[in-house]
Amino acid sequence: MLKNDLKDIGAESYEILKDLDSIPLHRGQLYETIVTTQGPAHAKNAAPMGVLCKNHSQIILYLNEGSHTSINILNNQYFIVNITQDPLLFAISTLKDMEDEYYEDYNGMPYLKNTDAFFIAHTEDIKEVVREDKFGTTIIHVITARVDEIVRINKGALPLNRGIYSVIETLIHFSRFDLADSETKDKYWNRIKELNRVAQKVGSKKDKEAMHFIIKTLKENFKDLE
Amino acid sequence: MLKNDLKDIGAESYEILKDLDSIPLHRGQLYETIVTTQGPAHAKNAAPMGVLCKNHSQIILYLNEGSHTSINILNNQYFIVNITQDPLLFAISTLKDMEDEYYEDYNGMPYLKNTDAFFIAHTEDIKEVVREDKFGTTIIHVITARVDEIVRINKGALPLNRGIYSVIETLIHFSRFDLADSETKDKYWNRIKELNRVAQKVGSKKDKEAMHFIIKTLKENFKDLE
Repeated sequence: MLKNDLKDIGAESYEILKDLDSIPLHRGQLYETIVTTQGPAHAKNAAPMGVLCKNHSQIILYLNEGSHTSINILNNQYFIVNITQDPLLFAISTLKDMEDEYYEDYNGMPYLKNTDAFFIAHTEDIKEVVREDKFGTTIIHVITARVDEIVRINKGALPLNRGIYSVIETLIHFSRFDLADSETKDKYWNRIKELNRVAQKVGSKKDKEAMHFIIKTLKENFKDLE
Repeated sequence: MLKNDLKDIGAESYEILKDLDSIPLHRGQLYETIVTTQGPAHAKNAAPMGVLCKNHSQIILYLNEGSHTSINILNNQYFIVNITQDPLLFAISTLKDMEDEYYEDYNGMPYLKNTDAFFIAHTEDIKEVVREDKFGTTIIHVITARVDEIVRINKGALPLNRGIYSVIETLIHFSRFDLADSETKDKYWNRIKELNRVAQKVGSKKDKEAMHFIIKTLKENFKDLE
């Protein structure tokens, strides 16, 4: 459907990339993106979403049952992942419905006009998982999708990954640990454990290694941490 | 001193950039970097440090009196700012003294071998500020420095700024706000105020705007927040 129908996308210049490594999205890391989908009656939807890179041509999404994104992807198969670091696009797509003026069209699919790069993907496999937490029971659709085409509009495009930020914030807490009273130490330590959880879930091998190194050093210096 | 003495820096290829905008470092934003300095008797030092971009050719550093970085810069005038997103370089330079093998030499100044870009700067102005907080009284040297030469080794070099990360984390809390009990709401709200403080201090105009938009929306939906 897509390969033979590459239209002018309206950007001044753009390149077609060959795989996710070229963006770069790295295997095993989870990126903060905005997913755009086409609903019925020309209703477009945009939602911020974590996208796990499975390998150079497949991704995994975890969708809450009943969300617009979930309904549209289950209906359509096709969706677009927008790669951007624009804080306003993330805020607006979380807080409200984006009007039509935010979108451009790529082979009948909506993408975000101001994105730095995007790729179109289609579902290959759908699994249902039941998640139970303190808020109750949620059904999650685990979507494995194949990437069909990757378009880079801005040469400086870079996907957003929370791994390095978790490391930096942990180091900031680390630097203040020595001077903190015992209540503040507890607070910092809980925060570091949460940051480590994020880094292990979304980060690179180096992010994980850095977190292990920091936590090991802290535990050597402060024996009562666990 | 420097312009006429550009030696081979040992990297396979590199470019000289004309100003901070080209890296890009943007005016008014504070970036997480690693500053390398030369001490007496060939002792090199590396320390993670926030660098405020004053304009396209000047930066501001806030140095704790008595730190290695502070002593070396006051002695030497010259220092190097390394632009990297490598979590291990940040962790190692915070947690221990970096051995000589981590450094390369640029006109007699040390920079980090694995950095993506770096620039050399020299002090133009030094002010002393006394900061009082719960940990006691600290003397801060506020250094205004001029950038002499900018070297990009890796084309993908990008300085680290915590603004967008603060926005993303705020949006994650926002999404969970509805379902949270009142104690958890308090916790989220305190965290959001802290993230807003970070974004206003280090972020771009768009980061600040996004934070205002999120906080305004939260306050409209939950009247008792302050």
